[in-house]
Amino acid sequence: MTMATMQQPPRIPETMKAWVLGNPDELRLVDKPVPRPGAAEVLVRIGATAVCGTDLEVISHGEPALIQGGMPFNRNFTPGHEYMGTVVRLGTGVDEFEVGERIAVEIHAGCGRCERCREGMYTACLNYGMNYDGHDKGHRANGFTTDGGFAEYAVNHVNTLVRVPAGMSDEEATLIVTAGTAMYGLDVLGGLIAGQSIVVTGPGPIGLMSIGVAKALGASPVILVGTGQDGRRLDIGRALGADEILTAGRDDVIAAVRRITGGRGVHYVQECSGAPDALNQAARMVSRGGRICLAAFPQEPVQVDVARLVRNNIYVFGIRGEGRSATRRAAALMAQKRFPARLLHTHSFPLAQVPTAIRYARERVEDAIKVVVRM
Amino acid sequence: MTMATMQQPPRIPETMKAWVLGNPDELRLVDKPVPRPGAAEVLVRIGATAVCGTDLEVISHGEPALIQGGMPFNRNFTPGHEYMGTVVRLGTGVDEFEVGERIAVEIHAGCGRCERCREGMYTACLNYGMNYDGHDKGHRANGFTTDGGFAEYAVNHVNTLVRVPAGMSDEEATLIVTAGTAMYGLDVLGGLIAGQSIVVTGPGPIGLMSIGVAKALGASPVILVGTGQDGRRLDIGRALGADEILTAGRDDVIAAVRRITGGRGVHYVQECSGAPDALNQAARMVSRGGRICLAAFPQEPVQVDVARLVRNNIYVFGIRGEGRSATRRAAALMAQKRFPARLLHTHSFPLAQVPTAIRYARERVEDAIKVVVRM
Amino acid sequence: MTMATMQQPPRIPETMKAWVLGNPDELRLVDKPVPRPGAAEVLVRIGATAVCGTDLEVISHGEPALIQGGMPFNRNFTPGHEYMGTVVRLGTGVDEFEVGERIAVEIHAGCGRCERCREGMYTACLNYGMNYDGHDKGHRANGFTTDGGFAEYAVNHVNTLVRVPAGMSDEEATLIVTAGTAMYGLDVLGGLIAGQSIVVTGPGPIGLMSIGVAKALGASPVILVGTGQDGRRLDIGRALGADEILTAGRDDVIAAVRRITGGRGVHYVQECSGAPDALNQAARMVSRGGRICLAAFPQEPVQVDVARLVRNNIYVFGIRGEGRSATRRAAALMAQKRFPARLLHTHSFPLAQVPTAIRYARERVEDAIKVVVRM
Amino acid sequence: MTMATMQQPPRIPETMKAWVLGNPDELRLVDKPVPRPGAAEVLVRIGATAVCGTDLEVISHGEPALIQGGMPFNRNFTPGHEYMGTVVRLGTGVDEFEVGERIAVEIHAGCGRCERCREGMYTACLNYGMNYDGHDKGHRANGFTTDGGFAEYAVNHVNTLVRVPAGMSDEEATLIVTAGTAMYGLDVLGGLIAGQSIVVTGPGPIGLMSIGVAKALGASPVILVGTGQDGRRLDIGRALGADEILTAGRDDVIAAVRRITGGRGVHYVQECSGAPDALNQAARMVSRGGRICLAAFPQEPVQVDVARLVRNNIYVFGIRGEGRSATRRAAALMAQKRFPARLLHTHSFPLAQVPTAIRYARERVEDAIKVVVRM
Repeated sequence: MTMATMQQPPRIPETMKAWVLGNPDELRLVDKPVPRPGAAEVLVRIGATAVCGTDLEVISHGEPALIQGGMPFNRNFTPGHEYMGTVVRLGTGVDEFEVGERIAVEIHAGCGRCERCREGMYTACLNYGMNYDGHDKGHRANGFTTDGGFAEYAVNHVNTLVRVPAGMSDEEATLIVTAGTAMYGLDVLGGLIAGQSIVVTGPGPIGLMSIGVAKALGASPVILVGTGQDGRRLDIGRALGADEILTAGRDDVIAAVRRITGGRGVHYVQECSGAPDALNQAARMVSRGGRICLAAFPQEPVQVDVARLVRNNIYVFGIRGEGRSATRRAAALMAQKRFPARLLHTHSFPLAQVPTAIRYARERVEDAIKVVVRM
Repeated sequence: MTMATMQQPPRIPETMKAWVLGNPDELRLVDKPVPRPGAAEVLVRIGATAVCGTDLEVISHGEPALIQGGMPFNRNFTPGHEYMGTVVRLGTGVDEFEVGERIAVEIHAGCGRCERCREGMYTACLNYGMNYDGHDKGHRANGFTTDGGFAEYAVNHVNTLVRVPAGMSDEEATLIVTAGTAMYGLDVLGGLIAGQSIVVTGPGPIGLMSIGVAKALGASPVILVGTGQDGRRLDIGRALGADEILTAGRDDVIAAVRRITGGRGVHYVQECSGAPDALNQAARMVSRGGRICLAAFPQEPVQVDVARLVRNNIYVFGIRGEGRSATRRAAALMAQKRFPARLLHTHSFPLAQVPTAIRYARERVEDAIKVVVRM
Repeated sequence: MTMATMQQPPRIPETMKAWVLGNPDELRLVDKPVPRPGAAEVLVRIGATAVCGTDLEVISHGEPALIQGGMPFNRNFTPGHEYMGTVVRLGTGVDEFEVGERIAVEIHAGCGRCERCREGMYTACLNYGMNYDGHDKGHRANGFTTDGGFAEYAVNHVNTLVRVPAGMSDEEATLIVTAGTAMYGLDVLGGLIAGQSIVVTGPGPIGLMSIGVAKALGASPVILVGTGQDGRRLDIGRALGADEILTAGRDDVIAAVRRITGGRGVHYVQECSGAPDALNQAARMVSRGGRICLAAFPQEPVQVDVARLVRNNIYVFGIRGEGRSATRRAAALMAQKRFPARLLHTHSFPLAQVPTAIRYARERVEDAIKVVVRM
Repeated sequence: MTMATMQQPPRIPETMKAWVLGNPDELRLVDKPVPRPGAAEVLVRIGATAVCGTDLEVISHGEPALIQGGMPFNRNFTPGHEYMGTVVRLGTGVDEFEVGERIAVEIHAGCGRCERCREGMYTACLNYGMNYDGHDKGHRANGFTTDGGFAEYAVNHVNTLVRVPAGMSDEEATLIVTAGTAMYGLDVLGGLIAGQSIVVTGPGPIGLMSIGVAKALGASPVILVGTGQDGRRLDIGRALGADEILTAGRDDVIAAVRRITGGRGVHYVQECSGAPDALNQAARMVSRGGRICLAAFPQEPVQVDVARLVRNNIYVFGIRGEGRSATRRAAALMAQKRFPARLLHTHSFPLAQVPTAIRYARERVEDAIKVVVRM
């Protein structure tokens, strides 16, 4: 920090390069004014932005269904929500951070005044998306309802910032928010998982980070369930700490989980696949009184055996994003090098090639997992 | 208590009348030995036993699916789980109760040694049904896995007993465990419901008791949702404290709930209908970050909009029965006459007429709600 | 609300009467500018302000010890934190309330950005008192660190407002925040108190409101402990729902509590007396594993039997004020007329007579309990 | 396990060597019958028993004050509660363990029928010590109220057993229950400590295990406070993961903690010293809204600044032992080799030399930390 403040403060230009949404699936690289931080905000010069599955959804369909009537496509909006960078300017009243500090961001800043925010559930802010014109309640969801990270600069509320330790690469730092979502899932499941068994279904980035975080917290055994297409991802899951790897289609997954746990089923399932039958499968993997966190979902309604949930006293927690300051807890584990998050990073592209980066992520080109855009 | 102990201790016969299961849907009235209480148990002379919807299921299909392979029909088993009576004999080591005290019972006594019991979730006991021969882990579920209340006497673990206050009728006392289930649902929803809004769906006995308990705890508004067939039950819901009554089919229930809550949706839904679309409806009634307790369920898998649960950070709690000592809390409210539970009681029959009592409950003869068998 | 908005909007003057602190114990009535509400704030025309024991402390010693170096006495500061009134002007972005609505206020608005606020514990805001000059983090504690209620107008953050139901007097409405503090204490104690036993020590306003709230929530038995000087207050405690009244000095209080609870001790103690030995007494009243909430305290360090706390697995919760939205829950119970809070109100004085009102409260003149200043 | 069951079952003698209490401070080595396991119990052939500070208290003063009137000294009682061994015989209904398995024990088995046990707080069992004659409620506290581990054999309830992984020495396994107590403390503090700051005061065995467990769970920074006499223990604390070591008397501990945490204070203090001023010191080390766990205590009442606790919304949790199955969670971390618990073990003695072992522990002979008796 001392060194940072001794640095010549960086010159901040008037305009910047940024990708903006046009019509669905239409992204353009434009020049936009560099935004100015307000009270409790900072300006971040972005270093790296990872492509997330939800970005693809936002780019194709707009902000997912939380705002009445949805979000318009033609408002010069910049997507991208998994980013990190350097604080380059402070808004009024900010002394939590200094110019020159490297930070990663979490997505949501709540309004601070609805019932959910007042109880700490700011990812379920009741004023989600209320940040327009005369209706600004202060809610921010970077890259969803407010400008995000496929740009050179972004403004962020101090609540969304977490320090990046020296020695962590920019690419790895973009995974902090991913690990934060994994940690939030474990948090709603109870948090005290040392010595307890968990299944993670779906070896996407959140699933893989769930493996790393669960293992770091002492869960045992940690079981990862993937498919035949997930070869490389399953290997990374092993490296991140999975004790057992099961392949749906090839293994009888339910039977295997029962066998590994002496017939009882696991304490927890963290569902990160979004597969249509995932909730039913999870309900057959947990023990009576067990808990399931849904961090992913199928787009369409699916058949669910509700009777099994009730008869077995199962709790199901839907989560969205990275609440309860879980990102800071996850960042602490990464700073302590508890698991090799960097393994998820497979490709980098410059800012000018965002469409290519997105194509790599969407189509899993060259077995891509985490594709990062460097500024 | 003083008076009770001054009474001549009641003479306990060697045999008793009891209804027992034969083949599915076959009930016979037989003479059976009066059971003897073991350590931590008492013998109860039953005063009244209410017919519950689950009794009908047990009588037709056996114990619901929790025991591997199900429960045999031919073992002279006595159903009935909502009962009250008088303590007439103490097992060894019992000083929590005295001979002569009137008590109601909750259904479950956990094994006390599995992980669930050790954390207080004894209704999700991992040794559910393990009470046979060399495999007795101590679990008891009256009328489900161990002999129940359609008989003159029953043995009960002290953990299942709750005192009945003087002045409460036997019939009302059979509703204590029903209220306990309602209370347990509110407990898993968070418990601190004063000033918070709740919808109860389904005006069966558990739903109606949920109205009474929620109102007693200060929830506001309390909204009851029923159907066109529920006329009398909805009136009773009003008497128990419902601020608003909605009729599915006639009202646009979702829109009405939104209107009543200023567009936000309610804090909690307690689902007691078991209707196929109930979970989806509930998810559209709660606010973002809201909670749904499922106390009933459809027998078959149903279409569920899982995406809505995840996107809105909704938590779903399946419960079975009356855990976490909720029955004692509910009994306390009834002792304080906080709501007129007795309104649910519509019919009484003597022990000899159990089949008639069951028919009244099953077919809602004469608009029956709670049908009670008197000994 | 409809009628309110049809009213001619009230004319708001440029200046107002307000009491301000000079040197310790020096209060002056001055003309001050009417403040203007900022974003997320409203202007309140005050209707009534109750005198609280903490006001006396603030007036004599300044803001209690939370701000490094304390608060200066010479800054034209207006004390008073238990007030109610009418919304007369909205700041930008406010649509939660309308002009014309009657509201009561809770004391604290957190900064919304520290760790405590982000987890919902805004009464323990880590930026407490940070509301000056370049250091404004947004924290507000009415009458402690920002101007309070002994004035004609005050500005309030929307988070601090709770609606006053039609039919509740202004005087009773000033007790909403008192009941909110009582409710917060019960909340940290666990909240699910129906059927559980509680001792409240100290029949001051918070203690008496604790009786009312605990009884409303179904606690049983509810035991009030006072002293020989508390005659009238104990009678009011009885009217508010105390099942048992004990008088320290006359009764052997510990023995009596043990007797009432069959030797076990109570589940909870809510300590509202601030007596030097209160914590030790409480520890001897609770059962093993019981919980004690400290809502009052002796000014000087006292002898504490820490060994008893540890050996008996007792939890002690210090609280300050009315966090976790408890005020709204308490207001809901009062709107439902669950207990006669109005009994606490004993005297009213006009704004010009604040010093007399304070003297009545401080010296318990004419057995004063709650002394209210009317505007 | 397979191999174990293939072994010839060990021959169990009729009598065994055991140390028993006579008058205070009087221990005799006698021949006693080998006890027989009842329902839900096993017989353990003891492998190693560590000396704990509380043993010294039990030997000198009897069971600490929880039983009305205390425990008699003349009942042939065997102390010792930190032990491990091998299952050699199963009571009826036990299939959770097999003959031949190595296990460590936790101290408490609750009665399973009081309110505390029913909510999972079995270390605060309301029937503590009720295990005599006609009053046996089933409570067991090994080495406190029932025979303990300074003997060749002991009977244990299955609830108290936790498996010892292959490759862990007997000596290290005796530390599992110590780590369990440390874990329980972190559990009551909130459990989600990754990235949160903690001070552990007192580098005794529980304090040192708290360092290891806190670090394993990701707490950061982890600060250990000792005294000038604790040189070797502080070094071990460093090896177990302490980020900062402070020495009371030499460092200004409060100031140092404030400096390390940027002025805020730590999230949690785990107090393991029992020093007279420890609670006050802890209250000055935690941030507002912080939490303190008392795992040790001064024998006599001490001066406590209660006002600071209340004004700063501090929660204080007294704990006794190792509840909520924390021992199993701790054992899992030790099985995963997350911290070198074995460093605490400094001396071993054979069963015949229990008095010498106790003297080493009591007088810290040769800087003894954990002294273990081998059978």
